[in-house]
Amino acid sequence: MSASQDQLNVQDIDRETTPASLRTVAMPADTNPNGDIFGGWILSQMDLAGGTHAFYVAQGRVATVAVTGMKFHKPVNVGDEVSCYCATHAIGRTSITVSVETWVRRRRLAVEEQVTEGLFTFVAIDTDGQPRAILEPVSDFDRLDDSSPTTEV
Amino acid sequence: MSASQDQLNVQDIDRETTPASLRTVAMPADTNPNGDIFGGWILSQMDLAGGTHAFYVAQGRVATVAVTGMKFHKPVNVGDEVSCYCATHAIGRTSITVSVETWVRRRRLAVEEQVTEGLFTFVAIDTDGQPRAILEPVSDFDRLDDSSPTTEV
Amino acid sequence: MSASQDQLNVQDIDRETTPASLRTVAMPADTNPNGDIFGGWILSQMDLAGGTHAFYVAQGRVATVAVTGMKFHKPVNVGDEVSCYCATHAIGRTSITVSVETWVRRRRLAVEEQVTEGLFTFVAIDTDGQPRAILEPVSDFDRLDDSSPTTEV
Amino acid sequence: MSASQDQLNVQDIDRETTPASLRTVAMPADTNPNGDIFGGWILSQMDLAGGTHAFYVAQGRVATVAVTGMKFHKPVNVGDEVSCYCATHAIGRTSITVSVETWVRRRRLAVEEQVTEGLFTFVAIDTDGQPRAILEPVSDFDRLDDSSPTTEV
Amino acid sequence: MSASQDQLNVQDIDRETTPASLRTVAMPADTNPNGDIFGGWILSQMDLAGGTHAFYVAQGRVATVAVTGMKFHKPVNVGDEVSCYCATHAIGRTSITVSVETWVRRRRLAVEEQVTEGLFTFVAIDTDGQPRAILEPVSDFDRLDDSSPTTEV
Amino acid sequence: MSASQDQLNVQDIDRETTPASLRTVAMPADTNPNGDIFGGWILSQMDLAGGTHAFYVAQGRVATVAVTGMKFHKPVNVGDEVSCYCATHAIGRTSITVSVETWVRRRRLAVEEQVTEGLFTFVAIDTDGQPRAILEPVSDFDRLDDSSPTTEV
Repeated sequence: MSASQDQLNVQDIDRETTPASLRTVAMPADTNPNGDIFGGWILSQMDLAGGTHAFYVAQGRVATVAVTGMKFHKPVNVGDEVSCYCATHAIGRTSITVSVETWVRRRRLAVEEQVTEGLFTFVAIDTDGQPRAILEPVSDFDRLDDSSPTTEV
Repeated sequence: MSASQDQLNVQDIDRETTPASLRTVAMPADTNPNGDIFGGWILSQMDLAGGTHAFYVAQGRVATVAVTGMKFHKPVNVGDEVSCYCATHAIGRTSITVSVETWVRRRRLAVEEQVTEGLFTFVAIDTDGQPRAILEPVSDFDRLDDSSPTTEV
Repeated sequence: MSASQDQLNVQDIDRETTPASLRTVAMPADTNPNGDIFGGWILSQMDLAGGTHAFYVAQGRVATVAVTGMKFHKPVNVGDEVSCYCATHAIGRTSITVSVETWVRRRRLAVEEQVTEGLFTFVAIDTDGQPRAILEPVSDFDRLDDSSPTTEV
Repeated sequence: MSASQDQLNVQDIDRETTPASLRTVAMPADTNPNGDIFGGWILSQMDLAGGTHAFYVAQGRVATVAVTGMKFHKPVNVGDEVSCYCATHAIGRTSITVSVETWVRRRRLAVEEQVTEGLFTFVAIDTDGQPRAILEPVSDFDRLDDSSPTTEV
Repeated sequence: MSASQDQLNVQDIDRETTPASLRTVAMPADTNPNGDIFGGWILSQMDLAGGTHAFYVAQGRVATVAVTGMKFHKPVNVGDEVSCYCATHAIGRTSITVSVETWVRRRRLAVEEQVTEGLFTFVAIDTDGQPRAILEPVSDFDRLDDSSPTTEV
Repeated sequence: MSASQDQLNVQDIDRETTPASLRTVAMPADTNPNGDIFGGWILSQMDLAGGTHAFYVAQGRVATVAVTGMKFHKPVNVGDEVSCYCATHAIGRTSITVSVETWVRRRRLAVEEQVTEGLFTFVAIDTDGQPRAILEPVSDFDRLDDSSPTTEV
C-alpha cells in the first residue's frame, strides 16, 4: 500500500477476484514526442475503465466529476499489455468514487506490475444531463436477463 | 457450439477460467456510415487480442498469417463493453492458431452475449521477420521474474 | 492461383479491368509494436473495401457476417501504397460474398505485389438492421443519374 | 473546365485512363461539429494522394511546399466513396506540381461527381531534407523489377 | 512579408495582440512515412483554426470553399508546439477570407518561427447548408453575455 | 476561487496575461457513447498542455507523475473551442507542479467559461528516463536564440 493510498484509505484491488475493466495494448500511435506512452492516453484508459465500472453500479449514464490521488509509478512502454482494474471506493447519493489501478505485462514477461493508481469520481446523470440519485447498490447484479431490450432507455 | 465451430473442431472458450485478452468500450469514433460499430474495428480488436495471446505463448514477436471461420453473429453497438477471449487452438512448428471470441455487455445489462468468433493464425518471427521455431509450450509461465530486463530483446 | 484460392474456387481478380475499391498509404500511426503495419489495420481496409463493393451491388446498406480464406502473404511496410481490389464471388438471396485482394506498391518500386487475399461475406440489411432480399444483380449500373437526390433514403 | 482551372491552365484529368491515386470512404470520425466531413480531412487526403503521385515521379522522398487554386465545390457526406485523381501539372528542377481532383460516389448512386480541385506543389528532398534535382521524367516506369530490394534506400 | 503575401496584399499578423486560434503539440501519430509531420495534418489544423475564426466573425456555421497562397516554409518536427494565428483578410456578402499563419516553438527553444501561411475562404451557411448573408462585422463582440443559453441555436 | 483551489492554495490563472498553452475544437470523434465530449479526451488535452508548460520551465523532457485536485465543473460540447491555461504552482528539486485550467467558448458565444481545473505534477527526466535536477527557474527565457540547433539534444 503506497503513501497516497494510505492517506485516502484506498484498499489495494484484489486482482485474483476482480476481472480487468479494460485491457488493451499500448501502440506506437499512443506515444508522446519522447517515444514513451503519452500520459494523457493512460488517463483516458483509466477514465474509460472507471466510467464503465460506475455505469454498471449506477445502472445508467455517468459523467466524470473529479480525479484525486492520481499517481504514475512507472512508465508504460510500446507493446505493453495494459489492464485497468476497478473497485467501488465510495457511493454517495448521486456520485460514485472508483479506485482505478493500471497494471502492465511487459513484453516477454508473464507477471504484471502496477504502473498507476487513482480515484475517479463520477456523478450519475439523467437524460437531461442532470444529477440523479443512485439506486441502492445492487448485490444481485445478474437480475437483468438476456431477454431484456439491449438498447439503453 | 455453432456449425462453423463444429466443422473446425473449435471448442467454446470457458470464460469462467479464461480472463479476457482485451476489453474496451465501443465509441462513436468507431462507427461506420450506418451508425453501427465498423466491422473492421472489431476485426482489429480480435487481431490485437489474438496476437497478444500468441505473443505470450510463442514467447516473442508474431505476425498474423491467416483468419478462418470468422463469423459475426450480432451487431456491436456504441457504448457496448467489448471483450475478446482467446484460447490456443493448435500449435505447429512455427505457427500458433488462436480461437478468438468476442462478447459484449450491452449498456444496462449485466450479462455478456457472444457477437463473433474466429480462428487467427500467427507465425512466430525472429528479429529479421523470418519464421522461427516456437519453443516447447511452456506450462511454467512465470519462470521469468520481474527482475528481468523489460525491454524486448 | 494459391492453394487456398483453389480450394474455394476463387478466381484471381483482373486488375487491368478492375479499378481499386480502396487505395491509401500505410502511415506510422498504423504500425504495431514491432514497427510493421498492424494486421488489424489491413483487415479494416479490406472490410471497408469489400463493404463498399457490396453496398453498390446490393444497392443499399450491408453488414459483414463472415470472413474466410483470409491469408497474409507478405508484410505491409510504412510508406507502401496499399490497394484493395474486389470482385463479386457469389450472391445469395440476402448475402453477397466478395473476393478482396490487397496489393502494395513498395516505395521506389513501380510494380505492385499481392500481400493478402480473403473472402468477405456481407448481408443486405434494411433500415431496421434486418436481412433483406438483394435485388437482381444489375448489369445496367448507371441507370441512376446524377439528378437523383444524393442523400441515402 | 472551371474558371479557376482556366486561369491556371489546369487541364481536367481523364478519369478513363487515370487510376485513382487514393480511394476511401468518409467515416463518422471524419466529421466536423456540423456533421459534414471536415474540410481538413479532405485536404489531408488530397495531400496524401498528390504526395504519392509526386513520390513516384520524383523517384524518392518529397515534401509539400505550396497549395494553390484549391476549391471546394460541393460538400462530402458521411458514407461517400472518396477518390483523388492526380496528374503532373509541371516539373521544375527540384519541384513537381500535381493537379489533384476529388470525386465522390454518393451512397446509392453509381456516378461520380467532382467535389474539389487544387494544385499541390512538392519539392524533392534528399535524406537530409535538402532539395535535390528531380531525375529526368521517366517514361519507362517499370524499369525497376520486383527483385529489387523493397526497402527505401 | 513574403513574396506571396505581397502579391495578395496579405498583412503579417501581429502576434502581440492576436491570441492563437489553435495551439497543440505535433505528436508521433501525426508523422508521414519520412518521419516528418504530415503536411495534411498541418492543413487540417489551419483549416480548423481558420474555420473557428470565421465562425465567430460570421456568427454561425461556415464551410471551407477555397485555399490560396498556401506556402510551407519549413518542416514541423515531432514535439514542436504548433500555433495557428488568424486575421480577417476580407469579408464578402456571404464569404469571409481568413489569413492563417502557423508558427512553431521548437523543443528547447523559447522563440517561435513561422512555418506556413495561407488564405482560407469560408462561406457562411444556414441550417440547410445554403449560403447566407454575413451580418455586419461586429466590433462589439462581447455583446452576448454568459447568461445566454450555451447550446447553438 | 473554488473550494478545491482554496484547500490547495491554487491561484486563479490570469488569462489576460497568460496565453493559452493549448487551444483546439472538440470534434465528434472525441465524444463518448452519451454524445458528450469524453472526459479522457479532456484529461489528455490538460496533460499535453501542462507537459508543454513544464517542458519549457524544466528546459527539457518531463514525465507526468501525479494529478490532484482535478475537477470537472461543466460538460464540454461538440464544437466548443477548448483552451487550457497553465501556471507554475510549485517547483521542487526534480519536479514541477502545474496548475491547469480548461475554459471553453461555446458556439455562438464570445465569452469563455471555465470547465475544469487540476494540478499536474511532472518530473524532469534525462535521456535515460531518470529524474534530473531542474535548473534554476529562468526569468530570461529568451536567452536561447533562433540560431541554436532546433533538434533536441
